[in-house]
Amino acid sequence: MTEPFDAVDVIRAKRDKEALGDAQIDWVIDAYTRGVVADEQMSALAMAIFLNGMTRPEIARWTNAMIASGERMDFAALGKPTADKHSTGGVGDKITLPLAPLVAVFGVAVPQLSGRGLGHTGGTLDKLEAIPGWRATLSNEEIMDQLRDVGAVICAAGSGLAPADKKLYALRDTTSTVECVPLIASSIMSKKIAEGTDSLVLDVKVGSGAFMKTPENARELARTMVDLGTDAGVRTVALLTDMSTPLGLTAGNALEVRESVEVLAGGGPRDVVDLTVALAREMLAAAGRDDTDPEEALRDGRAMDVWNAMIRAQGGDPTAALPVARHTETFRAPAGGTLTRLDAYDVGVAAWRLGAGRSRKEDPVQAVAGVEIHAKPGDTVQEGEPLLTLHTDTPERFERALAALADAVTIDGEERPAGDIVLERIATD
Amino acid sequence: MTEPFDAVDVIRAKRDKEALGDAQIDWVIDAYTRGVVADEQMSALAMAIFLNGMTRPEIARWTNAMIASGERMDFAALGKPTADKHSTGGVGDKITLPLAPLVAVFGVAVPQLSGRGLGHTGGTLDKLEAIPGWRATLSNEEIMDQLRDVGAVICAAGSGLAPADKKLYALRDTTSTVECVPLIASSIMSKKIAEGTDSLVLDVKVGSGAFMKTPENARELARTMVDLGTDAGVRTVALLTDMSTPLGLTAGNALEVRESVEVLAGGGPRDVVDLTVALAREMLAAAGRDDTDPEEALRDGRAMDVWNAMIRAQGGDPTAALPVARHTETFRAPAGGTLTRLDAYDVGVAAWRLGAGRSRKEDPVQAVAGVEIHAKPGDTVQEGEPLLTLHTDTPERFERALAALADAVTIDGEERPAGDIVLERIATD
Repeated sequence: MTEPFDAVDVIRAKRDKEALGDAQIDWVIDAYTRGVVADEQMSALAMAIFLNGMTRPEIARWTNAMIASGERMDFAALGKPTADKHSTGGVGDKITLPLAPLVAVFGVAVPQLSGRGLGHTGGTLDKLEAIPGWRATLSNEEIMDQLRDVGAVICAAGSGLAPADKKLYALRDTTSTVECVPLIASSIMSKKIAEGTDSLVLDVKVGSGAFMKTPENARELARTMVDLGTDAGVRTVALLTDMSTPLGLTAGNALEVRESVEVLAGGGPRDVVDLTVALAREMLAAAGRDDTDPEEALRDGRAMDVWNAMIRAQGGDPTAALPVARHTETFRAPAGGTLTRLDAYDVGVAAWRLGAGRSRKEDPVQAVAGVEIHAKPGDTVQEGEPLLTLHTDTPERFERALAALADAVTIDGEERPAGDIVLERIATD
Repeated sequence: MTEPFDAVDVIRAKRDKEALGDAQIDWVIDAYTRGVVADEQMSALAMAIFLNGMTRPEIARWTNAMIASGERMDFAALGKPTADKHSTGGVGDKITLPLAPLVAVFGVAVPQLSGRGLGHTGGTLDKLEAIPGWRATLSNEEIMDQLRDVGAVICAAGSGLAPADKKLYALRDTTSTVECVPLIASSIMSKKIAEGTDSLVLDVKVGSGAFMKTPENARELARTMVDLGTDAGVRTVALLTDMSTPLGLTAGNALEVRESVEVLAGGGPRDVVDLTVALAREMLAAAGRDDTDPEEALRDGRAMDVWNAMIRAQGGDPTAALPVARHTETFRAPAGGTLTRLDAYDVGVAAWRLGAGRSRKEDPVQAVAGVEIHAKPGDTVQEGEPLLTLHTDTPERFERALAALADAVTIDGEERPAGDIVLERIATD
């Protein structure tokens, strides 16, 4: 078969700051999926996109081409509205766990296809796998059945959705082409649009623990994704949320499940509850259920009932004890005063080095590893007071984890402790 | 073995416009040669270098790292000065053929390690292989013996010189990262410095048929290479020369050998003679022989004697008839008037499509294919007069070759016909 384009010409066009044509984009994604465009060609193109950007029409076409590389799911047969949430990833971000069952309480189906962690940010599937018996992989039929019977499902995305994105994502990871708005936006939205949800709420993190370090970058990413979703017929809203400090009081798999269950029981840290409720309101509004009160469903146990059913439906035992680390180490306040900064990135790296995350896709994670947080920015602390407890089964990891925390804390600094967790809301005008 | 760096960090640094450190550069070139840095990582780095550049110290280190990836040759045992010439490649550029024997006339050894053509520019080895029996590949001992006995050798560069460059060059070709001063300069100079010549004259082409389309780009490349050579202890001079129109009256392998022999016989087109003599004067001056008269050695047959000995030493028969194409086609003047433009690039593409060049490294070339030129810019032509004769053994190629020439000619245009072939001289101050 003769190819209509040559990868060299497509790369050169983007290298020379030209906009790629629709047919060029369709071809390059398809040919990459088929192996006709080689990895070294796609990585050169990705770097050219990273440095020279893409226009909105290019990003939309690129997203559609990735969707077209695989299958699309369809939840119309459920006969109820569907809503999904996507987070760009942060430290201690366990929100999906309480959020999915909470929204399902109100008759909205939540098909939460999730990923695993890489680097300093955790992965939802890694967290849930801390629950004895729980399994991440479901067939499409199982997903439909669970959405019908329970209302919420959190599971691994099947390999059939946007396979071009899967291949490109792995390539970007090894070629320093990750933190790029066009490539991030098209990667996220191709999977979410292919997944077939009616509405989507995006949690775009801003701050040291996030991909996007500044509100400007986060806003651009959010706006790009909202436009892509809207154009594809998905009701899409984005919240910019604070990721300068870890979310809640835990970072690590079993530790975060425990905190999520506290939230489902009507307790839990204020920021986790606030963000869960804010995202639930957006999802419910997008699904036409803005007459509901998610906070009440946390207090009265209805969200917990869905959680228990959801975990059981995937083989897990929600009443089983969660695993606990064999070793802990304490990180203490270097001085007394007001804690003005607890750096999200540094805590994320510490949790990762303790064994909560992976360096390569194939690495195993420790369910028990992570960081427990005893004080948050704004709190007053005494010198020598425990600020963090580090958990791991492999104590030789403490040294490198503590090294990651060397500059994680500021006492009486000029930093302004975070106010509201939700910084900004971005929707179609 | 633990690696001291991670390719992801090196790529990210260049992506973010940082200068790479010496140790990073040494490592990335060595690790790429060893296969630890993957092709897709090196191509992303090459694109980042293409778009963000390298500083002079980075380019020097990069060049040294490529030299260190392989062996170095040493001609000190010859007991005579060595001089080499490198051209950045053009259309009809057969200068190496008369130049190497001409300079050897005066007791200067000329170790001319050459390449093959790719794309619209020809390759010196492809041209010489039009001579029955001539072989391009010599051992290092054969090169030394021939330099001692004959004084000049034109042969293929051994695989031991700068293997990192060899690998990177092939990668750049498929990833649109060719036309980049730091990468071109380091590629050329790593091979030339590793080759061990005392002095080097660079023929940097400018114009439509050259990699560098503008004097500014050519000047930057020339200056970069002169500095690299000088720093490495090689006396290096560059001439910027015109490549807006083909050099001489032929483009194609056997056709160019024929023209070169005309020059060695004291005749030949003025521009080819002028450039051969200008480059010879530079090489002789760099070798301490500025008391010599190269033009005389063309007229009195001494250069031809060395040519004959050089061709025979590599198995060729300098008296054998050169092969002739089975088919020709005529391209005629579209109007009468002054020919003000005959585009080098278009003629190069036509010769390539006729079979003189290759699209991929593995492709064979036709010795007979090419373009013969009957009028040059500045000449007066009649409408319908033959301007070019196209040669090939495969006449189905005429159509695409003629298509390449559709816009190759301007009659009575505003273009200024080229004046002197040498535009500028660049040397260390």
